[in-house]
Amino acid sequence: MGSDRRPRSLRNPTENPTMSAIPDDFAATTARLSEEVTRPFPAARKIYVEGSRPDLRVPMREIRQTPTVTNEGFEENPPITVYDTSGPFTDPAVPVDLTRGLPEVRTRWIEERGDTEVLAGPSSEYGCRRQADPTLAALRFAHIRAPRRALAGRSVTQMHYARRGLVTPEMEFVAIREQQRLDALRADPRYARLLRQHPGQHFGARLPAEVTPEFVRAEVAAGRAIIPCNVNHPELEPMIIGRNFRVKINTNIGNSAVASSIAEEVEKMAWSARWGGDTLMDLSTGKNIHETREWILRNAPMPIGTVPLYQALEKVGGRAEALTWEIVRDTLVEQAEQGVDYFTIHAGVRLPYVPLTADRVTGIVSRGGSIMAKWCLAHHRDNFLYTHFEDICEIMKAYDVAFSLGDGLRPGCIADANDRAQFAELETLGELTKIAWRHDVQVMIEGPGHIPMQLVKENMDKELVDCFEAPFYTLGPLVTDVAPAYDHLTSAIGAAQIGWYGTAMLCYVTPKEHLGLPNKADVRDGIIAYKIAAHAADLAKGLPGAQVRDNALSKARFEFRWEDQFNLSLDPDRAREYHDETMPKEAHKVAHFCSMCGPHFCSMKITQDVRDYAAQQGLAEQEALAKGMEEKAVEFRRRGGRLYEEI
Amino acid sequence: MGSDRRPRSLRNPTENPTMSAIPDDFAATTARLSEEVTRPFPAARKIYVEGSRPDLRVPMREIRQTPTVTNEGFEENPPITVYDTSGPFTDPAVPVDLTRGLPEVRTRWIEERGDTEVLAGPSSEYGCRRQADPTLAALRFAHIRAPRRALAGRSVTQMHYARRGLVTPEMEFVAIREQQRLDALRADPRYARLLRQHPGQHFGARLPAEVTPEFVRAEVAAGRAIIPCNVNHPELEPMIIGRNFRVKINTNIGNSAVASSIAEEVEKMAWSARWGGDTLMDLSTGKNIHETREWILRNAPMPIGTVPLYQALEKVGGRAEALTWEIVRDTLVEQAEQGVDYFTIHAGVRLPYVPLTADRVTGIVSRGGSIMAKWCLAHHRDNFLYTHFEDICEIMKAYDVAFSLGDGLRPGCIADANDRAQFAELETLGELTKIAWRHDVQVMIEGPGHIPMQLVKENMDKELVDCFEAPFYTLGPLVTDVAPAYDHLTSAIGAAQIGWYGTAMLCYVTPKEHLGLPNKADVRDGIIAYKIAAHAADLAKGLPGAQVRDNALSKARFEFRWEDQFNLSLDPDRAREYHDETMPKEAHKVAHFCSMCGPHFCSMKITQDVRDYAAQQGLAEQEALAKGMEEKAVEFRRRGGRLYEEI
Repeated sequence: MGSDRRPRSLRNPTENPTMSAIPDDFAATTARLSEEVTRPFPAARKIYVEGSRPDLRVPMREIRQTPTVTNEGFEENPPITVYDTSGPFTDPAVPVDLTRGLPEVRTRWIEERGDTEVLAGPSSEYGCRRQADPTLAALRFAHIRAPRRALAGRSVTQMHYARRGLVTPEMEFVAIREQQRLDALRADPRYARLLRQHPGQHFGARLPAEVTPEFVRAEVAAGRAIIPCNVNHPELEPMIIGRNFRVKINTNIGNSAVASSIAEEVEKMAWSARWGGDTLMDLSTGKNIHETREWILRNAPMPIGTVPLYQALEKVGGRAEALTWEIVRDTLVEQAEQGVDYFTIHAGVRLPYVPLTADRVTGIVSRGGSIMAKWCLAHHRDNFLYTHFEDICEIMKAYDVAFSLGDGLRPGCIADANDRAQFAELETLGELTKIAWRHDVQVMIEGPGHIPMQLVKENMDKELVDCFEAPFYTLGPLVTDVAPAYDHLTSAIGAAQIGWYGTAMLCYVTPKEHLGLPNKADVRDGIIAYKIAAHAADLAKGLPGAQVRDNALSKARFEFRWEDQFNLSLDPDRAREYHDETMPKEAHKVAHFCSMCGPHFCSMKITQDVRDYAAQQGLAEQEALAKGMEEKAVEFRRRGGRLYEEI
Repeated sequence: MGSDRRPRSLRNPTENPTMSAIPDDFAATTARLSEEVTRPFPAARKIYVEGSRPDLRVPMREIRQTPTVTNEGFEENPPITVYDTSGPFTDPAVPVDLTRGLPEVRTRWIEERGDTEVLAGPSSEYGCRRQADPTLAALRFAHIRAPRRALAGRSVTQMHYARRGLVTPEMEFVAIREQQRLDALRADPRYARLLRQHPGQHFGARLPAEVTPEFVRAEVAAGRAIIPCNVNHPELEPMIIGRNFRVKINTNIGNSAVASSIAEEVEKMAWSARWGGDTLMDLSTGKNIHETREWILRNAPMPIGTVPLYQALEKVGGRAEALTWEIVRDTLVEQAEQGVDYFTIHAGVRLPYVPLTADRVTGIVSRGGSIMAKWCLAHHRDNFLYTHFEDICEIMKAYDVAFSLGDGLRPGCIADANDRAQFAELETLGELTKIAWRHDVQVMIEGPGHIPMQLVKENMDKELVDCFEAPFYTLGPLVTDVAPAYDHLTSAIGAAQIGWYGTAMLCYVTPKEHLGLPNKADVRDGIIAYKIAAHAADLAKGLPGAQVRDNALSKARFEFRWEDQFNLSLDPDRAREYHDETMPKEAHKVAHFCSMCGPHFCSMKITQDVRDYAAQQGLAEQEALAKGMEEKAVEFRRRGGRLYEEI
């Protein structure tokens, strides 16, 4: 690290002399995002909850509701506040200009800590080369900041602060963001029904009724949660990944052999933010990876993850055996100085584990895993990411990049699930977790993959033990292999399950998995599938307040408030569109029946009669009667039991 | 029953004098099904496995595979045989003519038993009226058979035969159908990898390695499984519903306020059969329900279920309070004589339970449940389906119609899950199960609905106890309320879970649930979602042989046999279509890389190097080395444990 340090500079990034002007056509393309990406959600507004300081403003989405029509007139329904990942894109009050990037959220917080310096320019060789290359001017983001790095010998990770008892603004931001806003509902007895929630089953998770900054700090200090937030990504709205918080989802984008313009990738990122992606991985393997990443980071309100190995491999012409520690090291520094918030590092693919995959049905399916396996075989030496792990930690802690310890030996099919290769690597990831924590570097653990339902829990249980409760971050898992084109669904089943058991973040899978590159429609389908899985897991764990949205939507459904039902849903546009296919007229949206049943069969309408009856009879009396009937039924069954045994 | 009996007749149904000719235009519409519905599956052929008699031929789908290219040349891959629900529609050898109906499969089996008589015509008042109405001639199926019914005092149910030790051809058919065809794979050591299967976790289910006719008989006798097969539905290919067999799925169709022609409904049924619907419910509530049902039944290879209450309500102008036992009774006979295989009967919605729903967020959401609740309230009397339950049993056993005891008080939202109203009804369904079994009538139990994941298992456990292991048949359950337009997915999560725990049949939900009537695309999406859930459940339970299809598909994927991957999937058309979006050229389908990674990153290719290495090094040596490394890792973790405790 030492030899790379350059004199400190506080130079204004916009004055960077190596920066060429963006040609008009490119600017025109990126100056606006398409309307569908930036449109505010229907009946929703962006609100900001202020914390202990005026520059700590936590964004949320507030959804208005229409009143209920009762016999006595109108009854107001309270607005429902939900967690929002869409950043400034859906806030009409914040002008979005992709060529300038998002407003900075965290710069002052980082500067106040006084433990970083701003460098004169990139300290990676590759970063310098790209900055100096005049042929890239047309592609380059125009307002690149000089990189920031920890002062010599300092660690600037959230874990470092947490362990020293410091509650950072990032931790406070996260605490406010995680806390369900239920004050208005609690204050009004008419909304008691909305506050109902079933007890959860949480397998040892601890979900506090109130998420305090101190709770966040303690979780980060213990390594049970991470706040990925590189000091070079000040645009980021902090979020937390840990099983004692709301389950998160990750989305993947990235160009590849198929051409994909920078503007398209940035738009995909904003599209992901819109639909609910909590973090995003840029898995680009095509041209201009460095420049694409800069554009994405400067416009990304969520943490960005990468697999640096992919770019390192590009640098050596795609030959795995030509990879060296020096090339990877330079790539880590290059990306850390751009602001990448977490790195997938496949340091657990050790030489002795590689032959354990030979008898599998689908061998090694992780790209990073197979690259490192090939390197190990070619050199007959152990994985250099493993042998250089402490060196990697030194880089990570200078920028606060979190580890996402890659599962390079994850199973690629049901047959290979939970095998020795997979679990040997998991145990090594636990060993590496300890080393990273010794450096105060934040860690999460990647998990599979393809796992049949009855073997899912073993993955979670083993991860908690072997990796000391570091957050688990799984890809699905897919619970069967037989449904290509529907793997968002096969994997959402496994994701909901493993999220319930304690997985902190679920990496989405799109319908194109195994078949091709996802388009925008696939990204949306994949995200909604995973929002469903994550929310189902939150409900099952008993996350306080999670059920309020379900209850509010169901109350709206029961009362035929169609618009409220759409607006409270995860995808208001599609809910409305599907309804309108059968009943397109506006008048139908206030009708007290729907196309499934028609007016005669309207069960919701009939239920109102039940309520009137119960009110008239007195519910208590009826309950007593029902209890008497139940007792009789039990007695009957007891007698009947004999009949059954005669069969 | 006695007063309805009419003289026996063996009259040829095609000579029925009340039948008018079908007008040319209607015949033209129905004479052919659209190409997409009848097209054989790619690389598949229909095979028939013969049983103990030549007229017992069990249909299956055999999927051909292409050879694997190895260094030594081509290696054949065996065909994979899968369960097939598509009936004659996908068999080019069987000409389909909707105006004549499907060939009869079971007539001789039924006749041989000598316990039924063929009536002169319908014994229901409504059936007679419809038959005599000349204005219906244009709509009417042209080859209506006279109905068949048990001889006086006889029971003709599969349960009746089973309890008396008789293995019927229906039971043998089902045994052959359930048995995975693995003989060819077992005989060849090269296919050992395909036969691998993880042990299941089955929560008390008993899944035999070989499904014998005697095992089927014993399960039916015990009430743990049903074979819905009305003596008036001889076109049916028998199937079984029970938790010790393959998990099944039901699909719903039916016209409603929105006009839907008879031909469209028949096509939907064939479409459902194509994609994997094991049974089908006709939930029509619109015009000409009687005639539509006849067309469906005469062309349906799968059991057909209905909710007779819907039609009864039409008969009294949609006023629930005007319903009478006599009208429902006549409707039951009408539908039983057409050949409906199972009836949803909402006999558990008892008066004292109705007020228990008053405080729910969404009250009563079952249509049948709300109709009966309204009737109970209007008359201040207990449900006439409950008080007349023995009379209903008398009808059911004369035709072998199975009960699907309706869950009229199922929860319509997460908040109402597992409440007193729901479970009080479930206990009553157990009481009714005992009564039905006293009459040897087959029973399954309907279940919810909307249930968060942590409460799903309680539903299954309680059903097994309260309903004495009668097969459970659930609608989903949906594990969250927040995703209208994606409820096929929210419910597939719950369906996979409850199927694993022991539910025998899963009623599908389409993306239009809560929003509108499903179209053909929605039906396909709903079915595939449920095929995934059911198959995931079979894998998790450890159904013998279930994993072969996964293994074969994954082997094809690993070996870049794209066409085999598509053809082995649940939806070959869509898998191929998604692949072709990114890589449309035929040449790409044999390329050893795909659009996700490109040639450099092809992990599958690299794995081949691993195999070569392992073969060269000798796997045993490597395993020993790995074990040594693992031991070291464990030791390291043991030391590291202290560090963790210091935090």
